[in-house]
Amino acid sequence: MSPDEQQIRQLIQDWMQATREGATERVLDFMTDDVVFLRAGHPPMDKAAFAAAARAQAHGDAPRFDGRSEVQEVQVAGDWAWVRTWLQVDATPPGGGTLQRRSGHTLSIFRRDAGRWRLARDANLLAPDASSE
Amino acid sequence: MSPDEQQIRQLIQDWMQATREGATERVLDFMTDDVVFLRAGHPPMDKAAFAAAARAQAHGDAPRFDGRSEVQEVQVAGDWAWVRTWLQVDATPPGGGTLQRRSGHTLSIFRRDAGRWRLARDANLLAPDASSE
Repeated sequence: MSPDEQQIRQLIQDWMQATREGATERVLDFMTDDVVFLRAGHPPMDKAAFAAAARAQAHGDAPRFDGRSEVQEVQVAGDWAWVRTWLQVDATPPGGGTLQRRSGHTLSIFRRDAGRWRLARDANLLAPDASSE
Repeated sequence: MSPDEQQIRQLIQDWMQATREGATERVLDFMTDDVVFLRAGHPPMDKAAFAAAARAQAHGDAPRFDGRSEVQEVQVAGDWAWVRTWLQVDATPPGGGTLQRRSGHTLSIFRRDAGRWRLARDANLLAPDASSE
């Protein structure tokens, strides 16, 4: 496995860990300033909107997230890389309540940014997990 | 605009035109043999499954598709490229019936394959279009 692929896989692990800990500033440092998050049925989300949602979560006003990830493919090409990941994400509403599980793939674009890899584009294909319905 | 970007944009136009015409073999030639199509709530689809669905459509047993595309970003890196496109797709059920419109983004990975660009991975984020509901 190339050092680039290792760094990208580590970033994905660190991102999940920082999300669990509510470490918003650390999560924001994993993405480029021009990052775009794409989801079905929603307009594209930029870094400022991601930050606002993550800060609301850190203050307990939004669901708390946990999950696991399985990186299925990594392809590096110069200062760009694309990654296919399978994700399972559990969201617990504020104050408790029924856990909601979503699972599916992401297709993500990473860019080498001042020597570090950062997420630049992300297509999130997660859907409600039938096993939790 | 670089020749690579021009070729990729032309491929996307040609794909849409071939789809309208039901030219399944031409569409299949626009993708790599190891292509993977990702959609929310569905398992990944390979080239054989795409071909089976497209041939059913060409024989009138499935919805007919039309649509328009707007390429929003193209980034080439060596023999790889990624593209963000906005798509609107209209499906007409066999024998007529209510047209169903879906719209949204795709995030696609293209690979230079024997000197030609071909689609290698595709994340489809289209959702039912509110304006047609």
